[in-house]
Amino acid sequence: MTKQSLHNFFEPKSAAIIGASATPGKLGYIAVNNLLRIGYEGKIYPVNPKGGEVLGLKVYKNVKDIPEIVDVALVLIPAAFVIDVMKDFAKKGVKNVVISTGGFSEVDEKGAEMEKEIVRIAKEAGIRIMGPNTTGVISFPAKFTTTFTNIKELRVGGASYVAQTGNFGSITLQWILSRENFGVSRVIGLGNKCDVDDADVIEYLGEDPVTKSIGMYVEGLKDGRRFIDAAKKVVRKKPILVLKSGRTKAGARAAASHTASIAADDDIVDSALKQAGVIRVKNYGDLVSFSKAFNFQPPPGSNKIGVITPSGGLGVCTSDALESMGLSITTFSEKTIKRLEEITPPLVKVGNPFDIWPAVSNHGVEKCYAVGLEAILDDPNVDGVLAGFMQSPGVSELKNVDFLINIMKKHSNKPVVAYCTGEWTLVEELRKTFETHPEIRVPVYEFPEQASEVLSAMHRYAEAVNRFR
Amino acid sequence: MTKQSLHNFFEPKSAAIIGASATPGKLGYIAVNNLLRIGYEGKIYPVNPKGGEVLGLKVYKNVKDIPEIVDVALVLIPAAFVIDVMKDFAKKGVKNVVISTGGFSEVDEKGAEMEKEIVRIAKEAGIRIMGPNTTGVISFPAKFTTTFTNIKELRVGGASYVAQTGNFGSITLQWILSRENFGVSRVIGLGNKCDVDDADVIEYLGEDPVTKSIGMYVEGLKDGRRFIDAAKKVVRKKPILVLKSGRTKAGARAAASHTASIAADDDIVDSALKQAGVIRVKNYGDLVSFSKAFNFQPPPGSNKIGVITPSGGLGVCTSDALESMGLSITTFSEKTIKRLEEITPPLVKVGNPFDIWPAVSNHGVEKCYAVGLEAILDDPNVDGVLAGFMQSPGVSELKNVDFLINIMKKHSNKPVVAYCTGEWTLVEELRKTFETHPEIRVPVYEFPEQASEVLSAMHRYAEAVNRFR
Repeated sequence: MTKQSLHNFFEPKSAAIIGASATPGKLGYIAVNNLLRIGYEGKIYPVNPKGGEVLGLKVYKNVKDIPEIVDVALVLIPAAFVIDVMKDFAKKGVKNVVISTGGFSEVDEKGAEMEKEIVRIAKEAGIRIMGPNTTGVISFPAKFTTTFTNIKELRVGGASYVAQTGNFGSITLQWILSRENFGVSRVIGLGNKCDVDDADVIEYLGEDPVTKSIGMYVEGLKDGRRFIDAAKKVVRKKPILVLKSGRTKAGARAAASHTASIAADDDIVDSALKQAGVIRVKNYGDLVSFSKAFNFQPPPGSNKIGVITPSGGLGVCTSDALESMGLSITTFSEKTIKRLEEITPPLVKVGNPFDIWPAVSNHGVEKCYAVGLEAILDDPNVDGVLAGFMQSPGVSELKNVDFLINIMKKHSNKPVVAYCTGEWTLVEELRKTFETHPEIRVPVYEFPEQASEVLSAMHRYAEAVNRFR
Repeated sequence: MTKQSLHNFFEPKSAAIIGASATPGKLGYIAVNNLLRIGYEGKIYPVNPKGGEVLGLKVYKNVKDIPEIVDVALVLIPAAFVIDVMKDFAKKGVKNVVISTGGFSEVDEKGAEMEKEIVRIAKEAGIRIMGPNTTGVISFPAKFTTTFTNIKELRVGGASYVAQTGNFGSITLQWILSRENFGVSRVIGLGNKCDVDDADVIEYLGEDPVTKSIGMYVEGLKDGRRFIDAAKKVVRKKPILVLKSGRTKAGARAAASHTASIAADDDIVDSALKQAGVIRVKNYGDLVSFSKAFNFQPPPGSNKIGVITPSGGLGVCTSDALESMGLSITTFSEKTIKRLEEITPPLVKVGNPFDIWPAVSNHGVEKCYAVGLEAILDDPNVDGVLAGFMQSPGVSELKNVDFLINIMKKHSNKPVVAYCTGEWTLVEELRKTFETHPEIRVPVYEFPEQASEVLSAMHRYAEAVNRFR
């Protein structure tokens, strides 16, 4: 028997909220309210033995009374009552359950026993459980959520996240929506992983047409081997970025007390992830910032990078960064050099990095970037570009990037990653212009080293895909 | 004979602009205009054989005609005429000269010959030269500049910069003034370093009462040994942060073409800098972001760090980051644990990192941070704190940080470094509040890893100072 699909967790046509409440501020109220507010279009069935109404919706006293078999149920009632409601689900035929309630295996032996019983009931009835002790799911394409996060904007995009912490469904999502310009598809908090685990979820996201990249925050893997096997398959289709924390002794101690994760030899974890083609990131913020590039640009066909620099010093820093991260500052073809020389003053030597600055006073910023980027992208020795920008009021200001549309289109298989420094307001404007332009979507970072790291991660991903071919 | 001091480069009471121009847009115009605009209070003597006026100032036809011996002269005329004007300076008795003009040793043999002759004249007459081929000096306390940068705001503070690139006096300064909340003292572009070099400048900045930290961008050192000797002395008084680029082959190639810097074995550079107690940074942006912390907070007395985390996951990441960077997640004293337990719900285990989150719903964000930070700073096992904040609308919002004033004052010898994530507008507000509050000045970063790196750099600095004691 194949397992019940996870699909209904993410695209449910109907949802029951077990423990719904009419009292503002209570979780059972927030959960219903959130669904209404983000415009969930499926049926919502609040459940509470007290009956009555919640936010204008009829409250059912029991799961059995709901006039249909709901696609998904969210459980908010105290741990002690969860076993009974699981039995109701089994009778009714509900197959996908998010248990938000805590107080199970993460707390004590008694909780662990209850969790076992829940799993037993689920297995017998073919129910899939997410949790317990989780905020569950946010599914942007379905306008569906089981979390308590106040989502202000549903910006649908390709970035999905799986986390062993509530952060990605809450504070980090708020960061992404308010600070970044990329969209989100599914966000999943796995909690105690009594049934649905990391491997299940990446398999689902691997097949999910909306998801373009998967970012994961992992403190511990229950079944490392199964995860690695699943990852190997998914990586052929889309990148998986993993932040595996607890890699130091202090980190492992903190992870043990946070999610009861068992410490693993980090070298073994590292090599297993590498073998699976998973991109391991070391910083929490990288899960956010790397996703941007993977969603906007293709990975480079090789490690041969062309660099456009707005200053000599930043060109040196960029070269250091790229080379130390396994990328190559390629040698431009003679034809490229000639094209770049055409805009560069006679005494200045042209090479890679191409320093835009000497050319700017004669030709203006726009023309220099147009000629420079086109020549470099045209070069067969180049498979990706790192371009630096400086926004200085009245000296080098780029407002519009439409002049790059055709150049980018011509080489849509070669990634362009940028950084931009200078006057903050102008920098922010240019970043927004680049990142939101539907025909350009160049990810912009603050300094060359971060842009280089991203390009290096994209290259490692391309290599993994090639390896699996 | 002791060498002429560099003081007049930074605090001149009078300045001559050789090559001043009445034509807007010309460098000779911009230089005079910049001095007027930022409110330079010394005398300005424009010099140009044509005479006339520049921006209401009388133009002298020759240096000899200036009615006093100026403290500093800025040379903007073409390379071929610089030798003659140097002879004029020698006769007149001018002792500090910034040669902005390019076309010397960085270009060809002929330029190198001219540069030698200039140095010969200077040595004989006891003149100190900055440059040639440099944008020279910005001195915020003196409202003085030889650069062409449009400075909008003179925010005087302790961060000084020395660079072998024009960036720090231009685009990076614009970034700092528009993005950061710390102030700047002296910014120096050294150009070809025909006379004044890195060692001279750090010696000066070491004695400079306004400078609290020195950030350096270096592609090559002319006299590495002298620099290291000078650095060893300066480090006892204030931190020196160095980004030495050209550390990879590609970087060295780019540096050679940018500033004709000769590649050095990076391992040797690295160990020499370490021995001298210099903090080496790897990313361009670190020169900016690290300066902030060094200017706001004291270095930690030991590597024993207390952590406040707004979420379990971020606590694990912080632990990983701190430990992998040589810091120690200290064990809190029993007294501290008790104080933290007083605000934490019974079932939650209290430790380091201290997770603020379980306590928030009962006590509110403000009280939790107040109790948490005070207990941890009071702990004799703690010599520095890394505190995380989450700004979530309506859930955990901090607007005001006055409640931390007395706590911070009590432990002004223990640094507090923060990061903050969440809703971008709220994050930015809190960052500004923390960083500009005169009695708090906690530097705020975006994610725990960056804050950890900064704390680690501060700890390395403290260790170097101890070593020299």
